[in-house]
Amino acid sequence: MRNTINVGIVGTQFMGRAHSNAWLDVGHYFDLPAQPVMRVACDNVAENLPPFQKRFGWQDAETSWERLVARDDVDLVDICTSNATHMPIAVAAAKAGKHILCEKPIALNADEARRMLEAAREAGVRHMVAFNYRRVPAIALAKKMIAEGKIGRVFHFNAVYYQDWLVDPNFPIVWRHDAKVAGSGAHGDMNAHTVDLARYLVGDEIEAVCAAEEIFVKERPTTGGGRGAVTADDALYSLARFRNGTLGSFMATRFATGRKNYLRIELFGSEGSLIFNLERLNELEYYTRSDDRAAQGFRTIVVTESVHPYINLWWPPGHIIGWEHTFIHEIGDLLLAIAKQEDAAPDFYDGWRCQLVLDAMTRSARERRWVEVAD
Amino acid sequence: MRNTINVGIVGTQFMGRAHSNAWLDVGHYFDLPAQPVMRVACDNVAENLPPFQKRFGWQDAETSWERLVARDDVDLVDICTSNATHMPIAVAAAKAGKHILCEKPIALNADEARRMLEAAREAGVRHMVAFNYRRVPAIALAKKMIAEGKIGRVFHFNAVYYQDWLVDPNFPIVWRHDAKVAGSGAHGDMNAHTVDLARYLVGDEIEAVCAAEEIFVKERPTTGGGRGAVTADDALYSLARFRNGTLGSFMATRFATGRKNYLRIELFGSEGSLIFNLERLNELEYYTRSDDRAAQGFRTIVVTESVHPYINLWWPPGHIIGWEHTFIHEIGDLLLAIAKQEDAAPDFYDGWRCQLVLDAMTRSARERRWVEVAD
Amino acid sequence: MRNTINVGIVGTQFMGRAHSNAWLDVGHYFDLPAQPVMRVACDNVAENLPPFQKRFGWQDAETSWERLVARDDVDLVDICTSNATHMPIAVAAAKAGKHILCEKPIALNADEARRMLEAAREAGVRHMVAFNYRRVPAIALAKKMIAEGKIGRVFHFNAVYYQDWLVDPNFPIVWRHDAKVAGSGAHGDMNAHTVDLARYLVGDEIEAVCAAEEIFVKERPTTGGGRGAVTADDALYSLARFRNGTLGSFMATRFATGRKNYLRIELFGSEGSLIFNLERLNELEYYTRSDDRAAQGFRTIVVTESVHPYINLWWPPGHIIGWEHTFIHEIGDLLLAIAKQEDAAPDFYDGWRCQLVLDAMTRSARERRWVEVAD
Amino acid sequence: MRNTINVGIVGTQFMGRAHSNAWLDVGHYFDLPAQPVMRVACDNVAENLPPFQKRFGWQDAETSWERLVARDDVDLVDICTSNATHMPIAVAAAKAGKHILCEKPIALNADEARRMLEAAREAGVRHMVAFNYRRVPAIALAKKMIAEGKIGRVFHFNAVYYQDWLVDPNFPIVWRHDAKVAGSGAHGDMNAHTVDLARYLVGDEIEAVCAAEEIFVKERPTTGGGRGAVTADDALYSLARFRNGTLGSFMATRFATGRKNYLRIELFGSEGSLIFNLERLNELEYYTRSDDRAAQGFRTIVVTESVHPYINLWWPPGHIIGWEHTFIHEIGDLLLAIAKQEDAAPDFYDGWRCQLVLDAMTRSARERRWVEVAD
Repeated sequence: MRNTINVGIVGTQFMGRAHSNAWLDVGHYFDLPAQPVMRVACDNVAENLPPFQKRFGWQDAETSWERLVARDDVDLVDICTSNATHMPIAVAAAKAGKHILCEKPIALNADEARRMLEAAREAGVRHMVAFNYRRVPAIALAKKMIAEGKIGRVFHFNAVYYQDWLVDPNFPIVWRHDAKVAGSGAHGDMNAHTVDLARYLVGDEIEAVCAAEEIFVKERPTTGGGRGAVTADDALYSLARFRNGTLGSFMATRFATGRKNYLRIELFGSEGSLIFNLERLNELEYYTRSDDRAAQGFRTIVVTESVHPYINLWWPPGHIIGWEHTFIHEIGDLLLAIAKQEDAAPDFYDGWRCQLVLDAMTRSARERRWVEVAD
Repeated sequence: MRNTINVGIVGTQFMGRAHSNAWLDVGHYFDLPAQPVMRVACDNVAENLPPFQKRFGWQDAETSWERLVARDDVDLVDICTSNATHMPIAVAAAKAGKHILCEKPIALNADEARRMLEAAREAGVRHMVAFNYRRVPAIALAKKMIAEGKIGRVFHFNAVYYQDWLVDPNFPIVWRHDAKVAGSGAHGDMNAHTVDLARYLVGDEIEAVCAAEEIFVKERPTTGGGRGAVTADDALYSLARFRNGTLGSFMATRFATGRKNYLRIELFGSEGSLIFNLERLNELEYYTRSDDRAAQGFRTIVVTESVHPYINLWWPPGHIIGWEHTFIHEIGDLLLAIAKQEDAAPDFYDGWRCQLVLDAMTRSARERRWVEVAD
Repeated sequence: MRNTINVGIVGTQFMGRAHSNAWLDVGHYFDLPAQPVMRVACDNVAENLPPFQKRFGWQDAETSWERLVARDDVDLVDICTSNATHMPIAVAAAKAGKHILCEKPIALNADEARRMLEAAREAGVRHMVAFNYRRVPAIALAKKMIAEGKIGRVFHFNAVYYQDWLVDPNFPIVWRHDAKVAGSGAHGDMNAHTVDLARYLVGDEIEAVCAAEEIFVKERPTTGGGRGAVTADDALYSLARFRNGTLGSFMATRFATGRKNYLRIELFGSEGSLIFNLERLNELEYYTRSDDRAAQGFRTIVVTESVHPYINLWWPPGHIIGWEHTFIHEIGDLLLAIAKQEDAAPDFYDGWRCQLVLDAMTRSARERRWVEVAD
Repeated sequence: MRNTINVGIVGTQFMGRAHSNAWLDVGHYFDLPAQPVMRVACDNVAENLPPFQKRFGWQDAETSWERLVARDDVDLVDICTSNATHMPIAVAAAKAGKHILCEKPIALNADEARRMLEAAREAGVRHMVAFNYRRVPAIALAKKMIAEGKIGRVFHFNAVYYQDWLVDPNFPIVWRHDAKVAGSGAHGDMNAHTVDLARYLVGDEIEAVCAAEEIFVKERPTTGGGRGAVTADDALYSLARFRNGTLGSFMATRFATGRKNYLRIELFGSEGSLIFNLERLNELEYYTRSDDRAAQGFRTIVVTESVHPYINLWWPPGHIIGWEHTFIHEIGDLLLAIAKQEDAAPDFYDGWRCQLVLDAMTRSARERRWVEVAD
């Protein structure tokens, strides 16, 4: 068996950098049967490549993802591009027999996602969607506690995802403002994470949604000096009913002045509750009705103990880890799944199911009505 | 001019006690032209009256609100009964020329509320709805800061109101579980407060809503040993659009395990943000974009300074006040309004406007669609 | 048996107001065999009396505490004056056979405190020192949990008491700045509370202390337009060893910019820990090593449940009480002790023991050395 | 000029791992004129070396630090051993002309530290003590704000450093419990950090200290099955006076049940205040008296903005970094100092000055008296 796995990455921007950091570090912390080799990086803007290669050590470069996907010396394709290109790259990579890691949201819509899922399944490759927040130790701990029955039946799943970088009306138009390229704005980028966490933690599917979206600043300066229309949502709020009766809410906005990357979820259950906030990602709040009646309260678990998920890879108690570690965990688990010839999770099925919900929310907002999530 | 004002209270339960405490204390803290006299208390269960009178010093008792309203020695009627009786008592009190303080929600529905408003206006009496949270010093401070432009245009108003006393399936049926008596469950009791705060702080009306409600425990034990069907909602979540473009959310539930009386509101604006949590009612969180860029953050204002609303009535900085003080502020302001022959606020108009929104939410939940708020 | 108890209060300033509020309210919440009557108020500045009487309903007035103490229609003397007068008033009150409630610190020094204790014991009257923070529900709960062994052996008792009202160098000289009148500055006023809480919660005596004091602003404006020397400490920090081996610290300062009345104590024990902060007095933080290893953390108990001390007097869960309620609890318990002919607590013995520690700290600061607490 | 710098590390335990991680990553984030090469690792236990080399990629190995220091292919020696060996290694490394990074505390006592400082100065090499917390972005931001006068004159510097891993009496004896090997226990390990931060942030020296130490568990199991005496302190508390009049406190303990790596510092100044807590190292709390009077409060700055120190190396706002990043910053700055031929900071002078304070605290605790810090 080969003891290396060659990686080709497509995209050199924010996610390209975050994934590169993880590819660099993963071998030093995970015990991997096959070490990743940072073989080739791809960007359609040629001048982006040399500094990216230099910083992270990608050995080779391509300016066309088609060529990258076709290379014999690539075993795994890591898709870090804008949403509109996920599908074609993933389908081609699958057909070429490459394992795939794909950024979220998986695609522009559920149809694309389903094509990706089918292509990957047909090819028999491993596939994963980069819902990295599943690999925050506190979230992994929450999952474990829920599985153990610690909070019982879940009555409510509430999620907010707040940023504020669009409050400034002079922030220029970027691809994320263009509904055609991005599929959606705050919604796809942010609710993708919280909808995935909802499915993961509640352990059931969302049945129906009712959403409202808003564009607060309708026009923004372009980098070219002109002005352009914003077509992607600044905010999308949604109510949700789960099959199991859980009543949920999802609120994503880039106009939450003062909040930078504030993803907060709450699960209220018949036996207890759990709360998580990404800006304090080393902490998990937990309430249990089984404590002494006079001593019940939300406790803040500092999730840095060796008994906590992933922490044995890192430092002693109280020495916190950062946001980027979630990618190391994700890529480590993907490499282990490949080595063990097991399915990775979350995979394209999860990406597709999440996209069904996101699509339903978009349709609901446009049509101003409740929408059943398609099956 | 008379220097006393005789009060008759109807209802001796939780709100009756909270109001009685305020009637007792208000004269010691407010400089009032006319001191209130705790003249007569009313409850249709006769045995409730003696202990209530003894505890709070109500001079006389009645078992019929009709008789109380008819008494010449009553100048002001304080309505602390269950929601279904607010309208008849208030209309009768108004016709008898009494000033009125009425607990919230103002009535079972907006039609009732409108009849109350019309009766009070025709009679020329002062009328107030007991939305006491407007008189939390931190909320009054927030209102002042918003009026001064501190947070600019409001993008989002988000409110949650969480309690957990119904999580226990053995908690017995009370009148609040009966939709006929209470009008609604968590919704009317809890969203009444947050909808009023929304109108007060955003300074505009809600245009349309989309809500979902749930009854998690469909049947509960009765105090008589049997079992009864729960018909009032355990939780109601709603999206809301304001006329001015604000996107809002309201989530009320009695199944938020671990939360006791957790009313939390957030206003995100173009210049700054404000956050308030009733369980820490002496604090207000504030973020401003006008701080130095490197030193921006949510600050916790401990609202106990002499420059803060109502605090000159109380103690030095850092000596916190309690929940019940909101009633003292409310009743003090009502008595001052009566003395100055000015309108009180929030009055029955506010109660009616709030009820229009609550009704729209209820209809929306039942009909599973967006509902415009009637005018 | 008489069913009233006549109260005479000496002092009409901050503490006079806080106690008056409690005398007013106590009968409405506690079930008392004998109701207090607010008989007479005393201030040596005659013009302070009418507004004070009017606000709180004190029936009569005196300008000499000697006369108040001598009145036949006074059963209990409530001493709310500056520290230098506590001893003479208390001794005279005891000799006149009056029960005594005395503000803290009990006296200017331990010798005075001992004279007060001896006088009260000889006279057989009830005596209490107004260490009101023992009656914060969260502190009473902490005491109960410690008694039940919840935190085991106490390794550390750490207390800070932070205020900031002297940071402004233009804040004028008041009696509290004069070491002769006040005995000490921040120290006696603030460490008195924390030393009492230490004795109460640790359940053992402090053996030796080492302190440092500081006057940061040596001269301040007088109200008369001149300038005066500050002779009382702005801050006093002290280390402490308890007889049982607990290592402690006490830090009081009026130069903690941004802290208003921030009394925070921590107890770290072999089985768990407790933390309390007066600015959030309805909360108690608790950590226990007996929780599941993966789910340990400091939990925030919202101390507003009916199972918590004193809360059955007040409101439902999550409806917080204020600082002033501690005085209602204190006075209620004192009145019950008098009715039951039992000792009150904390009494003059506790006041004296606390003063021994405070005196040792003062001496330690002056002599720059460890000082054993006298016995 | 050579564009690499060869590193030899001594010590493969906790600090060896943390430094190795930083050596691996630093070149990917800092723009370095000379890239570090992980040339050789040293441990006197031979079997520790292969897994350490494999995990982090150290090219070569030595079992004697004397041989490592003598190698021509080593430019910089990174000392991560127990405290007793810092001095001989550092002196030898300096004599061999190597640059030095040395873990804290710098040595067993100030005499050793001074020898190290003199050796490094004579040799003309760069030297740094690994007080990595200076490189937490929030601390670097605090330093900048203090330098800009944001908090004015500092009245108080209070530090606590709390851990709890010794609360379990069955935790076995390690070298840190042996005063001969470790110099001290909690004190040297933990107060070393807070004393350095005090010097850094207050910007002045400590003049005199008074300390108390305690060993709560006097005997512990040895790994060999027997029992051994604990001779190093479990906790050391100290008061401190700074030359500029600041009154300070330092409290280090390993018996703070529930606290894992809780280093919290407070600076209270004439214009504002700053608070930092290592368990939430991406946050800095700031209070300023220059805010509007009605809107003053402690604000939580989430130190993840591009305008904050070091953050331009990392991720967008709200994406937090971890504890280990402090080492990357430290080593990056050291390599830049070497490249620019400038002094590194904190250097052995700082290590020596810190050690003078630590020694004075130890002496003070042993002799139970105030001790002046030697010069």
